[in-house]
Amino acid sequence: MAKYTVGIDFGTLSARALVSEVETGREMGWAVCEYPNGVMNVSLPDGTPVLNDWALQHPMDYLEALTDTVPKAIHNAGVDPRDIIAVGIDFTASTMMPLDENQRPLLYKHPSKPHAYVKLWKHHAAQAQADRMTKIALKMRPDLLDGYGGKVSPEWTLPKIVQMIEEDPDLYDETDMFMEAADWIVLKLTGNLKKSAMIAGYKAFYSTDSGYPDKEYLKNVHPKLEDIFETKLRGEVYPSEASAGGLTKEMAKLLSLPEGIPVCVAAIDAHVSMLAGGICHKGEMLMIMGTSACHIVLGDETKKVDGMCGAVKDQVIDGLVCYEAGQSGVGDMFDWFVQNGVPAEYEKKAALMGMNRHEYLTYLAKIKKPGETGLIALDWLNGNRSVIVNADLSGMILGMTLSTKPEDIYRALIESTAFGTRMIVDTFEDAGVDITKICACGGITGKNEFIMQVYADVLKREIRVVRSSQASALGSCIYASVAAGKEAGGYQNIREAAKNMGGVSQKSFRPIPENISVYDRLYAEYRRLHDYFGRGQNDVMKRLKSIKKDVCGG
Amino acid sequence: MAKYTVGIDFGTLSARALVSEVETGREMGWAVCEYPNGVMNVSLPDGTPVLNDWALQHPMDYLEALTDTVPKAIHNAGVDPRDIIAVGIDFTASTMMPLDENQRPLLYKHPSKPHAYVKLWKHHAAQAQADRMTKIALKMRPDLLDGYGGKVSPEWTLPKIVQMIEEDPDLYDETDMFMEAADWIVLKLTGNLKKSAMIAGYKAFYSTDSGYPDKEYLKNVHPKLEDIFETKLRGEVYPSEASAGGLTKEMAKLLSLPEGIPVCVAAIDAHVSMLAGGICHKGEMLMIMGTSACHIVLGDETKKVDGMCGAVKDQVIDGLVCYEAGQSGVGDMFDWFVQNGVPAEYEKKAALMGMNRHEYLTYLAKIKKPGETGLIALDWLNGNRSVIVNADLSGMILGMTLSTKPEDIYRALIESTAFGTRMIVDTFEDAGVDITKICACGGITGKNEFIMQVYADVLKREIRVVRSSQASALGSCIYASVAAGKEAGGYQNIREAAKNMGGVSQKSFRPIPENISVYDRLYAEYRRLHDYFGRGQNDVMKRLKSIKKDVCGG
Repeated sequence: MAKYTVGIDFGTLSARALVSEVETGREMGWAVCEYPNGVMNVSLPDGTPVLNDWALQHPMDYLEALTDTVPKAIHNAGVDPRDIIAVGIDFTASTMMPLDENQRPLLYKHPSKPHAYVKLWKHHAAQAQADRMTKIALKMRPDLLDGYGGKVSPEWTLPKIVQMIEEDPDLYDETDMFMEAADWIVLKLTGNLKKSAMIAGYKAFYSTDSGYPDKEYLKNVHPKLEDIFETKLRGEVYPSEASAGGLTKEMAKLLSLPEGIPVCVAAIDAHVSMLAGGICHKGEMLMIMGTSACHIVLGDETKKVDGMCGAVKDQVIDGLVCYEAGQSGVGDMFDWFVQNGVPAEYEKKAALMGMNRHEYLTYLAKIKKPGETGLIALDWLNGNRSVIVNADLSGMILGMTLSTKPEDIYRALIESTAFGTRMIVDTFEDAGVDITKICACGGITGKNEFIMQVYADVLKREIRVVRSSQASALGSCIYASVAAGKEAGGYQNIREAAKNMGGVSQKSFRPIPENISVYDRLYAEYRRLHDYFGRGQNDVMKRLKSIKKDVCGG
Repeated sequence: MAKYTVGIDFGTLSARALVSEVETGREMGWAVCEYPNGVMNVSLPDGTPVLNDWALQHPMDYLEALTDTVPKAIHNAGVDPRDIIAVGIDFTASTMMPLDENQRPLLYKHPSKPHAYVKLWKHHAAQAQADRMTKIALKMRPDLLDGYGGKVSPEWTLPKIVQMIEEDPDLYDETDMFMEAADWIVLKLTGNLKKSAMIAGYKAFYSTDSGYPDKEYLKNVHPKLEDIFETKLRGEVYPSEASAGGLTKEMAKLLSLPEGIPVCVAAIDAHVSMLAGGICHKGEMLMIMGTSACHIVLGDETKKVDGMCGAVKDQVIDGLVCYEAGQSGVGDMFDWFVQNGVPAEYEKKAALMGMNRHEYLTYLAKIKKPGETGLIALDWLNGNRSVIVNADLSGMILGMTLSTKPEDIYRALIESTAFGTRMIVDTFEDAGVDITKICACGGITGKNEFIMQVYADVLKREIRVVRSSQASALGSCIYASVAAGKEAGGYQNIREAAKNMGGVSQKSFRPIPENISVYDRLYAEYRRLHDYFGRGQNDVMKRLKSIKKDVCGG
């Protein structure tokens, strides 16, 4: 009798539920629901303005998406709900909110206070607080940031809390608890507060060896933080394949699921997709290629690697260190060009050929040989995450002549992101973290084979593609199969589950031998420009941003 | 009784005749004729292919344009031809051709031989010969290039001749004379071989003090060059305000002009336009702003200035040194962007507003403040003429973010050409050649006030605009008025003629005080990048071109 698990992936704009067969990972049915309020970066529902760099969400959206998608996915799967043996959850992080003493979102009492809403992972308004935390850490606890590329990100939990302490102290005092939306959904489903060790590890400095940062450091960041992990951030953390408890009767009814089946402790969306690719060994890397890119690398010991976003042990795969790096602009850079750089004549021809602008530019770009455009670009239109970690860097393109065509620039932008990835791979290997196998997932893998081929050529490695096109949701199904346990029809451990349920497609991209040496030459140029503009030799990009600020204010 | 002169300006694609009143410079009537064969850079009239970098013309085109435009211009002017007292000629240079012993173009005997045609100024296929001439000069006669920015240009006369010696020696042997098209037209009009000292000065190393380069140097460049200035380049040179002789009966009839009126010795198109602006004093600079830009500066002694195209004494204004510098891409860079970087949506909106794409982008760009785009560019899409003199440099743009719009890039390109001009002005002043007054002429001055304002802001100087929109033709009229002499109703000297016939319009562009300091900051960034990419710190632009060559051949 086949058994199934449900994985629910809470993304930035929508949630997706997937029903997957435990034995094979076969995707039986799914459903997607966009969040009614989306990302609030202009105004709150009542019209209160939201400042620049803020990104808020409404917690009710998660519940609506949850109760909408799960029954639909089960219906679409055509399986008997009684054969569903567990539920897994993955979420963006740190996506957190203040709650009252009954674990209800504070915003219901304060619908006009921005700080009462969910702060989405990409809420960037706590940059000053993050910078201060970095400064104090480098002075007091230099080791603290070793696993985080040397810098505190404004996307993490503590800077977001400090921002609230400073900007809305009354609301802070009224807050009983801050909770990751991920953990709150698990609480909703099970009635239990069992926090995700994975999220705490990547976003709140938690480590299995040493726990949270010490009180001395916290107090120095802000006196009110001293006891934060015992008060407003209280709660034990657990691995994501652990069960947080059984599904409550009420939620079972709403979701058309059996009461009491195990619900996993929450996980981070990017990290669970690894399992969907069957990636669970040392030396394996997953590239999640979408509007931006995330690189997850497995190693067996914690090494210091420049510009990582985090290196956390045991939280994704027991016994392994899971490193995270990223590129802040990939697909959205190609979109920028397609929206701003494609002449009317091209648009007309694309339409005649029944292609969209991306397809038409790709068609023209791939006719050319590597090196033929004469161009080289820096892929920093959205700043640089790894390996420099600086949001004030910006884009550059070089080599244009009067014969340069739009497809040349499009190709140069694609190549620049591949060079950026190679820089990340090289940085890992230079730090002693070997990368022996590369898999990819995310929107780009299914949309553009040319891009994948450029990456294979530039990285000089085969790139395999994760079979599932909804890797995060499948990753949550995999965790759920472990939480269900062998007796209920699931798996004993995560490796066994990932091996059976995850995997790569037959299609893979192998480097074309004659392209390799040209790309080596171009990459050498990229690297030189990367260091010149990114590592302090010429800070013109930062100065241009500061001139702009002086001229325009803000 | 009003008197008139005719000026004929032979440009790259067309010739223009202008009838101007001697007393006031008033433009009475004109006519333009495009050359039937234009620039031959793909094939000869019989289909023989023309190689890359070649640019040929057909001498019959000049005669057709001459006999077409002059009668029309006189007709349009509505003046009595008997009141026309002299004719002046200006031409592109070095635009030269081989002739037989009867001064007939050799191409009539060899219509399928590319070397038998006119080599236009921008024929660039003699780069190797020019490089060799530079190398030998630097070794044997380092002073020779002092007045030419240190490099022999492939656009000059001798490299073009050496190319022919090497590639078509039989045709070289058969050539009785090489002649500038300019001098050949004067010969046609007067029957006299009276060569232009101005052209010989800028394009064949002639100097009033020391004549042509010595035979030892010439022999070292090529044995066949040893006697060239006595044989195939023979003929005395004269100043451009001198009369080359009276108009022949035959030509007078064809041109509807009085027989025997003086025809000036030929001049260079760029240099004569100075007179149209009334520019004839030390410290004055003329910017000719079109697809590319040319900068003419008057000084009182010959100084060594980096990256000049030539500094020749006495040939434009007696007693003054006339320096020439240039930017190889200005208007054609803006055109490149307008053709390749304007989205369909913009084109639609421009059309709705009844604007062309340049006008619409300008409208959007000028709303912004200096520094607001956050961008900086290097204006080298067509290489760099002054002050680096390297055709292998290429464009660069830096500072793009996902919010960068097409008008931002358009504005950055405009600003980059202004920074390039400031670099030229600064280089002159650093070398001790003061610039106290700037005038501009050329297509851009009449088309785009925003560009003119950016230049005024960046240069921190008032820019006056030459009154005439056909400055070269008017300059030739001015020379003609001197050649006619005071008795015939003309002028005694060039300064008097320029003062009365030339001048600037009332419109001028003054720097906006609040823009100056921002542009000073941006210019400092430009200058740093200029030196980094242009002066050997990072030769990535040259390497990208060589990678492209390796990949594509050629």
